[in-house]
Amino acid sequence: MKGKKIYLYDTTLRDGTQGEGISLSVEDKVKIAVRLDQFGVDYIEGGWPGSNPKDMAFFKRMKEIGLEHSRLTAFGSTCRPNLQASQDDNLRAILESGVSVASIFGKAWDLHVSDALKTTLAENRRMIYDSVKYLHENGLEVMFLAEHFFDGYKANPLYALDVLQAAEKAGADWIVLCDTNGGTLPHEMKEIVIQIKEACRKPIGIHPHNDCELAVANAIAAVQAGAEQVQGTINGIGERCGNVNLVSAIPNLQVKLGYHCVSDDRLKQLTSLSRYVAEIANITLAVNQPFVGNSAFAHKGGIHVSAVMKNTATYEHIEPEVIGNRRRILVSELSGQSNLVAKAEELQLRFHVEKSVSKEVVQRLKDKEYAGYQYEGAEASLTLMLLQESGEESELFQLESFKVFMEKKPDKSIVSEAMVKCKISGQTVHTVAEGNGPVNALDNALRKALEQHFPTLSHMHVKDYKVRVLDENEATSAKVRVLIESTHQGESWSTVGVSTNVIEASWEALTDSIRYLLWKQGAEALELEQEEVRVGIVNH
Amino acid sequence: MKGKKIYLYDTTLRDGTQGEGISLSVEDKVKIAVRLDQFGVDYIEGGWPGSNPKDMAFFKRMKEIGLEHSRLTAFGSTCRPNLQASQDDNLRAILESGVSVASIFGKAWDLHVSDALKTTLAENRRMIYDSVKYLHENGLEVMFLAEHFFDGYKANPLYALDVLQAAEKAGADWIVLCDTNGGTLPHEMKEIVIQIKEACRKPIGIHPHNDCELAVANAIAAVQAGAEQVQGTINGIGERCGNVNLVSAIPNLQVKLGYHCVSDDRLKQLTSLSRYVAEIANITLAVNQPFVGNSAFAHKGGIHVSAVMKNTATYEHIEPEVIGNRRRILVSELSGQSNLVAKAEELQLRFHVEKSVSKEVVQRLKDKEYAGYQYEGAEASLTLMLLQESGEESELFQLESFKVFMEKKPDKSIVSEAMVKCKISGQTVHTVAEGNGPVNALDNALRKALEQHFPTLSHMHVKDYKVRVLDENEATSAKVRVLIESTHQGESWSTVGVSTNVIEASWEALTDSIRYLLWKQGAEALELEQEEVRVGIVNH
Repeated sequence: MKGKKIYLYDTTLRDGTQGEGISLSVEDKVKIAVRLDQFGVDYIEGGWPGSNPKDMAFFKRMKEIGLEHSRLTAFGSTCRPNLQASQDDNLRAILESGVSVASIFGKAWDLHVSDALKTTLAENRRMIYDSVKYLHENGLEVMFLAEHFFDGYKANPLYALDVLQAAEKAGADWIVLCDTNGGTLPHEMKEIVIQIKEACRKPIGIHPHNDCELAVANAIAAVQAGAEQVQGTINGIGERCGNVNLVSAIPNLQVKLGYHCVSDDRLKQLTSLSRYVAEIANITLAVNQPFVGNSAFAHKGGIHVSAVMKNTATYEHIEPEVIGNRRRILVSELSGQSNLVAKAEELQLRFHVEKSVSKEVVQRLKDKEYAGYQYEGAEASLTLMLLQESGEESELFQLESFKVFMEKKPDKSIVSEAMVKCKISGQTVHTVAEGNGPVNALDNALRKALEQHFPTLSHMHVKDYKVRVLDENEATSAKVRVLIESTHQGESWSTVGVSTNVIEASWEALTDSIRYLLWKQGAEALELEQEEVRVGIVNH
Repeated sequence: MKGKKIYLYDTTLRDGTQGEGISLSVEDKVKIAVRLDQFGVDYIEGGWPGSNPKDMAFFKRMKEIGLEHSRLTAFGSTCRPNLQASQDDNLRAILESGVSVASIFGKAWDLHVSDALKTTLAENRRMIYDSVKYLHENGLEVMFLAEHFFDGYKANPLYALDVLQAAEKAGADWIVLCDTNGGTLPHEMKEIVIQIKEACRKPIGIHPHNDCELAVANAIAAVQAGAEQVQGTINGIGERCGNVNLVSAIPNLQVKLGYHCVSDDRLKQLTSLSRYVAEIANITLAVNQPFVGNSAFAHKGGIHVSAVMKNTATYEHIEPEVIGNRRRILVSELSGQSNLVAKAEELQLRFHVEKSVSKEVVQRLKDKEYAGYQYEGAEASLTLMLLQESGEESELFQLESFKVFMEKKPDKSIVSEAMVKCKISGQTVHTVAEGNGPVNALDNALRKALEQHFPTLSHMHVKDYKVRVLDENEATSAKVRVLIESTHQGESWSTVGVSTNVIEASWEALTDSIRYLLWKQGAEALELEQEEVRVGIVNH
């Protein structure tokens, strides 16, 4: 049986973009809106049409595209002091944006009315009443967002309530209580929402911020006290410490508390939704992000691993599959041999890891980790190491040397060239290529050398390239770790390289990623005519 | 007046290291312990002496060092089934570690007793009783950590309570309730802790995990229900989604709820403690981390900025200074001119930003941000841009060209060389240098060229060097952004460079960082004899 419906209101596209380092193009916003719609979010706040041309362009694009399930919402403020609602550009822009739902915020804290708005309490109430009424009379579903509601209610409860009731009388469909500064604690949240439920007739929404690391708890407390809508963002992005993270709020409400947010099938898309939005917004997700992080169901301690292998409930509070995540066994210096054997099984390695072999592998792993390697995110490199240790690796090509040359000329133009020399089936192959930068040039030269012998490589692409500086105190002479994610016909894998030299580290990860694909495919070098491809070094 | 004392128990050095990607050397652990002691944490869990040689070495080092305020604690399990406590190596290792406090965990969930331990409920109870008694009789303060307590109490309350009472009878000084799988919700936490408070005489501690993004809320709920100790980690690192983040729990308890954790003076060290531990553990802190993140008191939306300039309480739930953080005004495409003027004031730029100039600067900023620059973390580069736009920049040197050469030879050795040509006071300077990698070689060649004219640069150091790949879909031909943090006699500043070429981006950030220092110091090139330093390009 389905539980009580809780409406999801996503403001990633508006409040989310107020986060430091977050910037979305119009097309980014369109992509995210389409994905949120597929996931089954009820309301998508697209932007503030009156505030900037990018948001205007977004609403225009969305008219062409349309949404299946979600209702697109435009954000705006109440009209300005001493101005009629119908004269206010920002409210007119909402009507012109073509949405059927408007979310307008008004001040519920007397301090803000006097110190930020510089007007009277009565005029602020008038602005709220008129603005809601204007949008309502123009046929829109109207949400009134009471900004700073909780601080306002604590400072002057009568005025804060008065503001809500003005919005209700003017025809607001929803009363949304905003914890704008994120300073409210869950026990206060619960008490206050219960009081507001008694005073208002319209359904209540909640809009928490995460300044105390309590936004998810506050959303839950508000729903338990009777709120029926949660406003937040994917991955909790937003101004300062962000908004409530819907990615955590949803499974808590639905899986743990039995409310209904989206269908169970759509809930399985939660992990991929979170990662998709992170990719579009170009942010790095914390590996330990609750529910959807790569580490959320990753077991590292030896005791944990052996217990999870017996019964997953011993160290997992929910089944990762419910939200589309997966269980992982980590191999690290903390691990016993049980982790390594479990890992070999997970990787479906065909050989059997003998106890004596795995002891040596654990030692080699420790040495490599000490040197800065990290196999937790580079399972293909780990596989190659396991193969090498077990004597199963067959070397299809040998790399002899490479050279990289880069010049920034007085006219500011830049040239990057790379030369690679390797041996394939006894033949020496020597190639040169240019690139956008030294790593790209090296990648191009290496492919030029190998693709003629291993045509499958032309379908392989480097999908992600990450550089991490280790020992940051060493600055420009510090070690760097390069992680590369590659794909080939839908399958993807990750490799790692470490060096004080970013080019060398990239080279290592690049060649590992090629070796891994060739091993997977059991490829053998095509027999080519003995031929040396030599290209002279460019003069400079 | 001081509120009720809440004891802080830090397990960064033990549970923290179970987090994915976390690895601490013995010296790292010593450094963190010393810093936690200075901050005034009550208990520092140093490790599990029976489980690995690194932890043994740590406890040995700590005997030499000693702590001022904190009590060092060793972690361990109860004795194994069918073994006397005095015969158990892991318990003996705790005694040998030289600590005065032992924390031992035992199973409180019947499922774990049968499925993980594979023994009887009675035997598990016996193991707990004997182990606590053994440590207690050997003169240690003993904490009993009831693993999986909340899941256990929900499944079989009588047995879970029985286990706690066995520990109490055996002489445990603290009963610590662990939410090991992190699946407990705050309202359950509160109810259960109230019930346990009634059933136990010894003080209660709480050990929450963050799998539901509710660990901080759970710690608060437990304290409000009567718990007197919170066990967590700095920045919330730990297995899967981590432990409760003490960095958030402490200000919530002390600043917002009036409990006493540390002195107000020490609380001002919270931000630097958080960043110090992140640096040692080599993890990147989320910019939006509550309370201590770089964005926690950063204002980006134009409305927020203008209100905060009038009254900081309008958009800040606490004063950032209380926890050692600071307010920041962000400049970005969302910002109006008010942000830029506020920024110029914050940076103490001597010139006045005229309205007309700042309009052009906003446009230039938007163009640069579109190209991938980010000034939020690179205020020195922003300053240089503002100076350039206002015509105040004086160019002390001109960079003409550079070349970088790198070779990986067949014997696997690597050479990196860089050549730099620049003009200083009309003189052409041409230098060459080697380095650990191409960026380091370039840094060395540039310094060789400039230091003779600007001796102050010999005291400048690059402190941090970060590489971020933008548009990760483009992989090896993607743009990268390089952020460099430099220091000079205690002052530090950050600069940014963007290019598809990691060397070029690094070069841009490096030269910006030098230009900034020279501007700050009002430096002028030393008049040197006209002299050309030319070094030929190495043959290859």
